[in-house]
Amino acid sequence: MTETSAQLDESGIGIVGVGLIGGSVAAGLRKAAYQGKIVGFGRSEERLRKAQSLGLLSDFATEPEPKIHELSLIVVCTPVDRIVEDVRHFANAARPGTIITDVGSVKESLCRELKDLSNGEVTFVGSHPLAGSEKNGFEHADANLYRDRLCFITPFAETPPETLRRVVLFWSALGMKLQHVSPAEHDRLMSVTSHAPHLIAAAISLLLEEEFKSFTGTGFQDTTRIASGDPGLWRAIMMQNREQMTGTLEKFREILDEFTSAIESGDAQKLEQLLELAKTRRDSLV
Amino acid sequence: MTETSAQLDESGIGIVGVGLIGGSVAAGLRKAAYQGKIVGFGRSEERLRKAQSLGLLSDFATEPEPKIHELSLIVVCTPVDRIVEDVRHFANAARPGTIITDVGSVKESLCRELKDLSNGEVTFVGSHPLAGSEKNGFEHADANLYRDRLCFITPFAETPPETLRRVVLFWSALGMKLQHVSPAEHDRLMSVTSHAPHLIAAAISLLLEEEFKSFTGTGFQDTTRIASGDPGLWRAIMMQNREQMTGTLEKFREILDEFTSAIESGDAQKLEQLLELAKTRRDSLV
Repeated sequence: MTETSAQLDESGIGIVGVGLIGGSVAAGLRKAAYQGKIVGFGRSEERLRKAQSLGLLSDFATEPEPKIHELSLIVVCTPVDRIVEDVRHFANAARPGTIITDVGSVKESLCRELKDLSNGEVTFVGSHPLAGSEKNGFEHADANLYRDRLCFITPFAETPPETLRRVVLFWSALGMKLQHVSPAEHDRLMSVTSHAPHLIAAAISLLLEEEFKSFTGTGFQDTTRIASGDPGLWRAIMMQNREQMTGTLEKFREILDEFTSAIESGDAQKLEQLLELAKTRRDSLV
Repeated sequence: MTETSAQLDESGIGIVGVGLIGGSVAAGLRKAAYQGKIVGFGRSEERLRKAQSLGLLSDFATEPEPKIHELSLIVVCTPVDRIVEDVRHFANAARPGTIITDVGSVKESLCRELKDLSNGEVTFVGSHPLAGSEKNGFEHADANLYRDRLCFITPFAETPPETLRRVVLFWSALGMKLQHVSPAEHDRLMSVTSHAPHLIAAAISLLLEEEFKSFTGTGFQDTTRIASGDPGLWRAIMMQNREQMTGTLEKFREILDEFTSAIESGDAQKLEQLLELAKTRRDSLV
């Protein structure tokens, strides 16, 4: 048992949405020798029962009450466009002192809508663990999914220190490294490092004509790999992060225009400068 | 000895430019038990001597004559913006019946400039073997670099069948699969599958702000991997393929605009349709 997991409040943790992400939280807690109850919440009793039978959950329910009263921390792991609704549903039923967090990939709009819960009897603070895999379902739960990965936490000024401390403790018990950032800065960062590149990769995939398919090499395939991601999931993420996406795509268009005009005007020196700059930037990523 | 290499004319093969590409041609010929001379041509006697000492070359020279007179086939493996000049230099010295080919990544402008050599005493036909590695120099020559890889060959209507036959035989001896295509169609294909994606990956790299560097994951890194390519090499390729690049980038801009307007107008359904189409296209690449 790690020192961190020993400090975790053992009155119980609730996981709302026991898919790959939620299931891996459960598995990670088990591995960290968490001694308290792990209660799973979801819409399908059958699925929850199966998760329990696999050893992930102590107990389960399809509604917050009464089992939520036993718990001190709730982690909402449902799809990003359902999180606000689920946080409210559980906040309304939770006992005073309960802390709620989430795993949503987009934070600004979500946190803004839940701002009233930043400081009160039941508090909410946003989290975004940077971890995942292409798999789905708790059958693929991975106790090490979060180990040594980064977790963003996006408090407001009003967030009580105790709330923050306990959520940090929670992710640390799973082996994560914490990074505090504002919700808006988080979304901007994600649009640049993840959301816009995904959209651009999808656009490159659509550039490929049917007749050219057998001529793609590792270059094309590497560049477009992320376009194989789940369309529903990514549509939700991009729509939720519309504001930042728009800004980032505009910047991308400006950069693309620089390259394009160098080519159109035959400015070899300019083109090579841009390619050199890009190489330097890319090479600096360890 | 494969049947193919036994058919290769054994009067000798010349390799102009003995770098990774040229060196691997030599190594591949050795491996295929080619019985004729392999003569390397280049600018540095010292480098050529070293290549010979490594067993890649039978002989070498810094000028075509007199050794070119012993050879029946010349493969020009110099950088794409020097190929035309080098082909002419060797064509002027070669004896009648000599065949010249190349490895250039861009074919239309090159073949157009050398069209007068498509049918004559000394003939030229363009090739583009789709193979390579990030390494440089004949020290990294790989006898299997071309094995089971694709080679484009871009004849004109005037190209004599015998010229075509012998060049096809040559690449087949190295284990390549041949694909006949017009120079213009080749360049269009390459702009879509390789050149434009490279430029786009470079543009994404330039989108990344300094402060966000430690937050990139495998998604960003896979998408931008090709941006680490050699800037000089890629500048030359893109400039030589300017016409097709311009057309392809324009198509890319149109696709990007579709995505962008779906996001800006909040059209979730449209966005998801585009993402689904892209996923289907990407998943179909084996």
